[in-house]
Amino acid sequence: MFSLHPQLEKDCIELGNFDLCRLLLMNDSNYPWFILVPEREGKRELFELDDDDLQLYIKESNFLAQILKHYFYADKINIAALGNVVPQLHIHHIARYEDDLCWPAPVWGAQPAVAYTEEQLNKVMDVINKAMQETSAF
Amino acid sequence: MFSLHPQLEKDCIELGNFDLCRLLLMNDSNYPWFILVPEREGKRELFELDDDDLQLYIKESNFLAQILKHYFYADKINIAALGNVVPQLHIHHIARYEDDLCWPAPVWGAQPAVAYTEEQLNKVMDVINKAMQETSAF
Repeated sequence: MFSLHPQLEKDCIELGNFDLCRLLLMNDSNYPWFILVPEREGKRELFELDDDDLQLYIKESNFLAQILKHYFYADKINIAALGNVVPQLHIHHIARYEDDLCWPAPVWGAQPAVAYTEEQLNKVMDVINKAMQETSAF
Repeated sequence: MFSLHPQLEKDCIELGNFDLCRLLLMNDSNYPWFILVPEREGKRELFELDDDDLQLYIKESNFLAQILKHYFYADKINIAALGNVVPQLHIHHIARYEDDLCWPAPVWGAQPAVAYTEEQLNKVMDVINKAMQETSAF
């Protein structure tokens, strides 16, 4: 049975589920920073997913990246499977902007997280919901 | 026509070609740090690859990651498409070890690169060549 790693649970807000992945929002308003977690127990590396799951992951990753591009107007998408600290397979998808806090450096460890206000969080969720309703755009 | 970005040319050693990607080794002996560059002009994001190319990329990425796991004995593989500095689509594949220089932090900007000696480089290439000859292992 799949359960989310406690560190991800602590750091993130759960937004919903795709076919394979749980969609999380890192509770850091410095960047639109999402995380996909394939709901498969005991996986650490992408190559450990079986072929069907890997295809689902690619589809969901592309979908999310295009939301970051077209709905969050990212200048660049940063996608990364690191997992040096939290072993449960999870893949960062971050909208980056040329004027964001640590551009062009990677975000990890660069700046302390700033939790979302309720108003900010509602705005992010509105954008995500709008994008979900307009999937034909991709 | 595809040509490698000058910054990647400067920082890396070209090892060869898969069907889609050029395989580079970052000239930094601190970690076994490889880069896949899809040989398609003008791409910045993974979702810009067409379906056939995306399938090739996934195959080559998985193959390389498994080399890092089984031949370089990585404790964890770090895979990242960042591209904030070098816009040409390129995907980092790094073998990480629990006793490496900046574990568990990401490698970008953490430590100055230390160029390979000829002897070290030959060793890396021997491992890669051995892995390529034994692909049936995956």
